[in-house]
Amino acid sequence: MSKRLVHTPEGVRDIYGAEYEKKRKVEKLLHRTFLQFGYQDIQTPSFEFFDVFGKEIGTTASKDLYKFFDKEGNTLALRPDFTPSMARCAAKYFMEETLPVRFTYHGNAFVNTSNLQGKLKETTQMGVELFNDDSVLADAEMIALAVEACRAAGLKEFQISVGNIEFFKGICEEIGLSEEDELALREYISAKNYFGAEEFLISVGVKREQAQVALKAADGFGSADFLQEAKALVSNTRSLDAIDRLQSLYEALEVYGVTKYISFDLSMVIKYHYYTGVIFKGYTYGVGDAFLTGGRYDKLLSYFGKDAPAIGFMITIDELMIALESQKLAVAKDADIVLLLYKKDCCKQAIQTAAAMRAQGQKVELMLKSEELPLSVYETFAKNNQIKEIDTRYIENEG
Amino acid sequence: MSKRLVHTPEGVRDIYGAEYEKKRKVEKLLHRTFLQFGYQDIQTPSFEFFDVFGKEIGTTASKDLYKFFDKEGNTLALRPDFTPSMARCAAKYFMEETLPVRFTYHGNAFVNTSNLQGKLKETTQMGVELFNDDSVLADAEMIALAVEACRAAGLKEFQISVGNIEFFKGICEEIGLSEEDELALREYISAKNYFGAEEFLISVGVKREQAQVALKAADGFGSADFLQEAKALVSNTRSLDAIDRLQSLYEALEVYGVTKYISFDLSMVIKYHYYTGVIFKGYTYGVGDAFLTGGRYDKLLSYFGKDAPAIGFMITIDELMIALESQKLAVAKDADIVLLLYKKDCCKQAIQTAAAMRAQGQKVELMLKSEELPLSVYETFAKNNQIKEIDTRYIENEG
Repeated sequence: MSKRLVHTPEGVRDIYGAEYEKKRKVEKLLHRTFLQFGYQDIQTPSFEFFDVFGKEIGTTASKDLYKFFDKEGNTLALRPDFTPSMARCAAKYFMEETLPVRFTYHGNAFVNTSNLQGKLKETTQMGVELFNDDSVLADAEMIALAVEACRAAGLKEFQISVGNIEFFKGICEEIGLSEEDELALREYISAKNYFGAEEFLISVGVKREQAQVALKAADGFGSADFLQEAKALVSNTRSLDAIDRLQSLYEALEVYGVTKYISFDLSMVIKYHYYTGVIFKGYTYGVGDAFLTGGRYDKLLSYFGKDAPAIGFMITIDELMIALESQKLAVAKDADIVLLLYKKDCCKQAIQTAAAMRAQGQKVELMLKSEELPLSVYETFAKNNQIKEIDTRYIENEG
Repeated sequence: MSKRLVHTPEGVRDIYGAEYEKKRKVEKLLHRTFLQFGYQDIQTPSFEFFDVFGKEIGTTASKDLYKFFDKEGNTLALRPDFTPSMARCAAKYFMEETLPVRFTYHGNAFVNTSNLQGKLKETTQMGVELFNDDSVLADAEMIALAVEACRAAGLKEFQISVGNIEFFKGICEEIGLSEEDELALREYISAKNYFGAEEFLISVGVKREQAQVALKAADGFGSADFLQEAKALVSNTRSLDAIDRLQSLYEALEVYGVTKYISFDLSMVIKYHYYTGVIFKGYTYGVGDAFLTGGRYDKLLSYFGKDAPAIGFMITIDELMIALESQKLAVAKDADIVLLLYKKDCCKQAIQTAAAMRAQGQKVELMLKSEELPLSVYETFAKNNQIKEIDTRYIENEG
C-alpha cells in the first residue's frame, strides 16, 4: 500500500472525464475526414522487432526506444512512430499492387526520453499514408487533407509550412558535404542555429563565403512569391528541381482551395531521416512545436523489399488538444447521462425503466438513493460527472 | 533489406481491410452499450511502474510481464490487464467519492508468454468497472451489462457462467489449507484435474474422505436449482453465504430479464487473484476459453490507498471476433467508398467534384486513370478494397 503507487511514471498520464471526451470527439472528427478521402484503417502491433525501427530506417535513435526481450530472446521495441510499421505493411500485404494504396492509423507511440526534456513519452497519434504514387498530385492531396483535418478538428488559425528536403540535399551536394556532415548540419539548422551551422561548415572545409551563401539560401520562408526569389540564390539542379516541385504543388493546392493555410520554408528539416522530398509541418497558437508532421519517403519501402514511393503525415493528438484548449476551441459533447435514482422498494421498477430508456438510446446511470444522504449530494455528483439530469420519479415521497 | 523484417513477432499481428472494419464495428457497438449504462471513458498509460502489477496485486506473474527501464532507472511494465490501472485511478481521482463511480476502457494489454503456448501476446480489451458499490444489485448490473454487450456485438448463443470465489475459500478454510496451498489447489481445479486435486489435498494432510467431500461440493454447475442442492453439500458459513449471495443475484437478474444466459459454476476460479466474491466468465461456440471475464475485487483498491468495493468485467475483442467469425455473425459495414477516376486533363474538375461529394458525407478516393491500364484493373482493385463503385465521368472518351 504505497502512496507513490497511485502515480504514473513521468511523461505518461491518465485522461478521463470531460478532458477525455474532448479528445475522443476530436479523434472522431479526424477519423471521419480521413475516411472521406478513401483512407482505410489499419492496426499494427504496439511493438515490433527492433530492426523495424533500426538505424538504417532513420526514425528515432536506438537510445530513445523502449527495448525489451521476448521469451525467445528477440529484441523488441515499442513503436516510436507509425510510419515504419505502415511501410512494412504496404510491402507485406500490397507487394504486387501498383495502384495507389491508402492507410490510416490511430494509436499510441512511445519515445524513451529523459525526464529533463519534459516531453510526453507516450502520445496518441493519428495519421495517413499514401503508397505507390510519386506525383505532385499525391503531395497536394496529402497537404490538402492535412488542412481539412485541422479544420475538422476545429482549428481556425493554423499554418501548414511546406519544404523540400531535396533543396537542402542539393546544397549539401554542391558544397561537397559527406552524409555524416549533412546530418550534423541538419541539427544546427533544425535548431535555427545559423552561427553554429556556419562554424561547422567551415570546420569541415567549406569556404566561409560559400557557407554563407548556402545558409542564406536555406534560411528563408514565405508565400509562393518567395519560391521564385529563392531560385536566384541557388545554382545546383537538385535544389532548383526541388523549388520547381513546390511551385507545381502550389498550383495544385490552389485547385484544392487551401493555399491560405500554406507557407513555404526552404530551411525545413525533420528529425526522421527517412523523408526524401516534400516535407511539411503544421503550426498553430498554444503549442511551441509542430503538432502535425509529414512528408514524402520514397526509399523507406525498399528497406522492406518493395520499391515504391510514399507520402504521409501524422498528427500528435495530445499536442493538438493543448492547442485547441489554449485557443478555447475544444468542445466536449453536452452532458447527456440521466442519473436515475431509486429508493430500495422501487428497485424493480427502476431497473425496468432504465432498460426502456436505454432502448430509446438514452444513457442511464442507475443509483440507489441513500436515505442518509440529501439530494444535494447527488446533484454535486451529477455536476462533476457529465450528468445532464437527475430523474427523481422513484425517490418521491421518500421517508 | 531483410525479408524477415516484414514479419511481426510471434503472438502479435497486423489487422486491416474488411477484418479490421468488422473489429471496429463490434468495438463501436460494445462502447455504445457501456455508455448507455452510464459508464465513462478513461484512458491510462500503456505501461506503469512495475509495482502496479506486482505480486501482491494478484495479476499476471512477473515472468510474464514485458519489463523495461526508463532513463531514470525505474522498472516499467506493459499492462497485462486493465483492472489494476483502473483501481489506481479510482483511488487517485475519486479518493473522497463515496457514491458509485463507473469507468469504461478500451485498449491493448500485453502478456509475455512463450511462443509454445500459441497465444496472442497483445490483445485488444474493452471493459467496465463499478466502484463504491458492494451490493448484489451492483453484481446484477455488471452481469446484465455483460449480457447486453454480448447481444449488442451480435452473439446469439452464449452463456455467462457465474461463481463465487468465497465458496471455494470457505471450503479451503474448513479443511484448514494455507494460502499457498489454496493457490496450488486453484491450479488443479482450474484445469479440472480433480484426481490431481485430491492427491494434492491428501499430500498436505487432508483426510481422503474430507478431500472427496470438498471436491464434490466444488465440482458442480447448473441453473438456479443447482444452488439449492449445493447447499446440502457444505456446512461452513462462508460457503453457505456465498451461495446465498448467488441466489439473491439470480433474483435480481430475473428483473433484468437475462437469466436465460446465466448458469452457475461453484468450481470456478480465475487466474487473477484479486477477485474476492462473485466471479463470472462468458463462453460461446468457436473459442475454447472464456472471451469475457469479470468479478468482484473488494480488496484491490486498498493497495492504492482507498478502501472501497469494486466489480468489473472485460471482453477480449480478439477472442470475441474469432467467435463471431466462426459463427458467421461478424458483419462489416457495406463497402461505401467511391473511386473517382480521372484522366490527366480532368484533374481540376475531379478534385473539385471529390470535394463536393465529400462535403455531402461521401467517401471518395481520387485516382488518376493510367492510359496503359484497362478499366478492369481498377475494377479488381475496387473489389479488393471495400470500394462500392467506380465513378467514370472523368475518363469517358478516353484516348
